[in-house]
Formats: sequence, structure tokens, C-alpha cells
Amino acid sequence: MRELELIDRLDELLGAGDPRLVRGLGDDAAVVRAGRYAVTSIDTMVDGVHFRREHLSPEEVGHRSLAAALSDLAAMGAAPGEAYVSIGVPEGTSGEDALGIAGGAGSLAAGVGVAIAGGDVTRAPAITVTFAVVGWSDDPGSLVGRDGARPGDRVAVTGALGGAGAALALADGRASADALPADIAAALRERYAGPWPRLREGAALARAGARAMIDVSDGLATDAGHLARRSGVRIELALASLPVDEGVGIVAEQLGADPRVLAATAGDDYELCACLPAPPADATPGPSPDCALTWVGSVVEGPPGVVFVDADERLAGFEHSF
Amino acid sequence: MRELELIDRLDELLGAGDPRLVRGLGDDAAVVRAGRYAVTSIDTMVDGVHFRREHLSPEEVGHRSLAAALSDLAAMGAAPGEAYVSIGVPEGTSGEDALGIAGGAGSLAAGVGVAIAGGDVTRAPAITVTFAVVGWSDDPGSLVGRDGARPGDRVAVTGALGGAGAALALADGRASADALPADIAAALRERYAGPWPRLREGAALARAGARAMIDVSDGLATDAGHLARRSGVRIELALASLPVDEGVGIVAEQLGADPRVLAATAGDDYELCACLPAPPADATPGPSPDCALTWVGSVVEGPPGVVFVDADERLAGFEHSF
Repeated sequence: MRELELIDRLDELLGAGDPRLVRGLGDDAAVVRAGRYAVTSIDTMVDGVHFRREHLSPEEVGHRSLAAALSDLAAMGAAPGEAYVSIGVPEGTSGEDALGIAGGAGSLAAGVGVAIAGGDVTRAPAITVTFAVVGWSDDPGSLVGRDGARPGDRVAVTGALGGAGAALALADGRASADALPADIAAALRERYAGPWPRLREGAALARAGARAMIDVSDGLATDAGHLARRSGVRIELALASLPVDEGVGIVAEQLGADPRVLAATAGDDYELCACLPAPPADATPGPSPDCALTWVGSVVEGPPGVVFVDADERLAGFEHSF
Repeated sequence: MRELELIDRLDELLGAGDPRLVRGLGDDAAVVRAGRYAVTSIDTMVDGVHFRREHLSPEEVGHRSLAAALSDLAAMGAAPGEAYVSIGVPEGTSGEDALGIAGGAGSLAAGVGVAIAGGDVTRAPAITVTFAVVGWSDDPGSLVGRDGARPGDRVAVTGALGGAGAALALADGRASADALPADIAAALRERYAGPWPRLREGAALARAGARAMIDVSDGLATDAGHLARRSGVRIELALASLPVDEGVGIVAEQLGADPRVLAATAGDDYELCACLPAPPADATPGPSPDCALTWVGSVVEGPPGVVFVDADERLAGFEHSF
């Protein structure tokens, strides 16, 4: 497929129907009606680094790349607006791969009300997908950074953890799905291949007064560590309290691992970790109908970092292993 | 260098001092005070596809990647605002390479008043640099797309053409710099390694009433063709009128090529091609002190595309070769 044809077909797939869009694909740049503040993140996924091509369809690569980028907007509590994509595909790859990537991203975009307003397609030695995503806010004070956690806050995570890591172990052949019911194996795979960005939950947590928030892309232990350091606080988490995806226990057993350690350290779940003022202690702030919120720890004074209060030696010093 | 250290050092290099910036690197997303309309483009350069690592320093790779992205804003006549960068570097590459790329981009950004407000660093099989760039406009009617050219318009290009193509031939060893004065060889290399985005000229052309505009990244023949097709017009260009960079003639002679054909078809010059209403016929609309504007053709009725009115058989049918 020639590049011009590909771009024409991408043009049809992407960017249609956004009322904010004044000019879209086909010009040198897209023109979009802005809000008062732009919230922008850029994120890249590379075959062999962030995923393996043989584990994912092109559609899943596109979905997952956009989900990871939008997850950063979710972690700010920002309403999503537009996405801009750069797709790199190896020489000899069919144009269908690029179209599949765009199509998978386009489906997710439509599902969360995002317009893909611009794009670039190029040759690259490995499939490489970069998304720049833009959200809009009228009040920057309503957005949640990483630096606002304070001693006394409680720490919550959305959804459940460990599912993507378990799915990767299955895909890699480090564990076998034979011991899992088929529907649970399929659900685990979906956690890895088709994460849904927690945009609604991030906005609800921001409205509920979250003071610091981050998305869990590198594992809760690592990402809560970023929060702790940026906020200058210590975060105490309890392994026993972590919400763990169904089926993770069976996979962890095959790996000889504690399921909660897997949940604490495996990445790619794209859940949110938020710090909120303590009272009301047991209220679940604005959960969405299909996403639980679980209290997993608290913020204390002390040297910035994360500690698991109930971890054995397997998690002692985990901060140095990342 | 560990990723966290690298990100800390990038943080120091980038994003400082932009009054629009509310939150920058270190959070999940950057927060920027917006104008009324956002003008956004995304552009990727890959080692082995858009450049060869052995031809360029990391600083030049960074400069050139940002310049190419900003050139798209120039072609809209938009004022530049922020840039967001994703840098991919191969395993075993030193952190210094990523810092060099960021530093080169940072210098250009400072030179044109752009803040690099966000970024991502990842492993990749080849050096891969993606820039998403955002400009701001209060009036989308003042921006120039590709679709507004009308029969009777005249066609202009900024600066001179062919210099980057000639420099690439020298770098590839297809031609020798021995026949060139050293200062001219150095100037040609700079055209390839350090293009300056024509932001000032693009804004001046927009103010002067340009109806369609594009940046010349793939060669004038190809890019004017995009303009013609998007506008539904025929563009007649005269090879004899093309402004050609000094030294291109000597390189073209070694290649056995007509210098004006090289200027018309070689890419990477990042000049602008604009269509303006005919009168005043000989006025140079808002040239910048250091950048000429040359009239090179006109817009006519006819099958959409580009034709060189004085081309011999070497350019007949060039449209099919891209």
C-alpha cells in the first residue's frame, strides 16, 4: 500500500465527528477549539520493549498504546479531548498492520469520547506507536498532580492488580493457562491486551478531593514510590490489603510467587493509585459502577519512599531493583 | 545511567521558564494555559529512515526532529507554543545520547520561544524521536491550510532549495566536497543537519494573505502536489525560476543531475511553499530579513497535480515515482 493511500484510509478511520475539530488530518497540523488549560502527555510503545508482536493483534497494539497514554490524563483527573498518533511499521509490513493499529486505537477513542485528530506513519525497525493525548480543563486547581500527598492521607487503588502481569507470564509460557477456567484466562488476557483507561474514575477521585494521583503502569511499588518522592512523604502499603485480579493466585503459584507480591510489582495494569485526606475513612469516593476502590495504605512522615508494612524479605529493598 | 536519573536531568534541560506552564515534567501530564485554538502536529524521525546516525550528532538529531515538527506549524502560519518529545534509544546507548538529543532540541526550542513541556524516554531498536508540537491561535481564519489555493494564485517558496539533498549526497559519499569551498560545504551541511523552521516567514505569509501553504519536507514537486490535490487545482511551476542553494550546482554536476531538478525533488529543506492571490504581482509579502521569497509558478484550472512547464523528460511523470 502506498503511503498516500494509507494516509487517505487512516483519514477515513480517524478524526471524524469531533465538534471541537476545525481542521483535521490532511493538513500540516490539526486545529482544535481549546479549553482554558491543556493537559498533555506523550507515551510510546515499542515492539520488543513494551509488548511482543506475537502476543497482540495490531488492533490490540493500537488500543493498548492509546490506553496507556490516556491513563496519564486519568491520573490527572482531566477530561480527555484529542489524541495524535505516530505509527512506525517495519519495511515489508503490510499497510493492513498500520490500519489495524489505527483501527484499534480508533475504537477505544470512540469509546471514551476522544478524537484522533492527527497522525504520522513512517517506517521503523519495529512496530512503534506514540500517542500524544490532550485533555482540557477550565480550572487547573481541579487537576491532581503527584506532589500533593500529605501525612495522614489514605491511599487507594482502583480495580484490581496483577492481572496484566499474570497474563504476560501466560503469554511468555512461564505459566500455563491449563489450570485456569477459560473465562478467567480470557479475562486475564484482556487485562494485558485491552486495558481500559480509568478516565471516569480519575475524574471522580479528583472531585472527591484526591491530593495526589498516579497511574499504575510500572507496578504499584514503583509508581507509589514516584508519588512518595514527588510529595516528599513516606507511603506505607499493606500487601494483605491489595485487590488482586481473579486467576492471579493460580498463575503466581506456578511462578512460585506470592500473588500479592506479583500484584504489587507487576506492571501494565493501568489502574490508579490516589492519596486522599483520611476522613471519611471508609467512604468510597465516587466509584464507577464497574470499578471498585480499595484502601491499601496510608501516608506518613519519614524518608520519601514506599514501604510494605507486612512484606517479608522478598519485598524488602524492592525499591533498588527498579 | 538509570532512567530516573535521566529523567531528572532531562527535567533540568527542558521546560523551564515558560509562563504558560502550570505543571511540567515530573507529573503524569503537563498543564499549560491555552489559547482559543490549538494547532497540533506530530512528527517522527527514525535512524536509518529519516537520517543516519553516523551523519548527525545527537544534538543535531534533536534539533532536526523538532525543526521538522515545528515546520508544520510554520506551514499553518501558527505561533508556536509547546513541544512534547518521545525519545527512543537502543539498548547499550549511553544516557548521554538521549541528553544530547534533548539538549539539541532544547536549544532550538529556546531559539524560537517554544517550551518542551513533556517527554518520554524509552528503549527502541533505533534512535527514534517523536515531537508533538502545539501552537496557539485566537482566530482559526488566520491559519492557512492546504486546501485554499485557487486558479489565478501565484506560488512562492521561501529561502532556497536543494541544499539538504546536496548535503546528503556529500554525507553518503555519492559526491565529494573536495570541489566545494569549505564555507559552502559547511553551509550545505547545516541545511541538512540544522534546518531552521520558517515560523516567522509562515506567519508573515499568513498575514500577507496566503490561501494555501505547505512545508517542503519531501521535495517541492511532491509537496506542491499535496497542495494541488487538497485544493483541487493544477499548479504550474517553472524549474528555471527555482531558488537553488549555493553549492548545489557543483554537487549536482557530480551526480550527473540538473541542479534545478535536484532542488525540485530532494527533500528535507523545510522551506515553505505558499499560494497567494496574484496582485500585487511582484511584491514580496513580509519577507524576513534573512529569508528571500521567490515566485516559482502559478495556480491554474485543470486536473489536480503539479506540472513543471519547462521540464524535460527527467521530470515528466515524476508524480508516479513518489
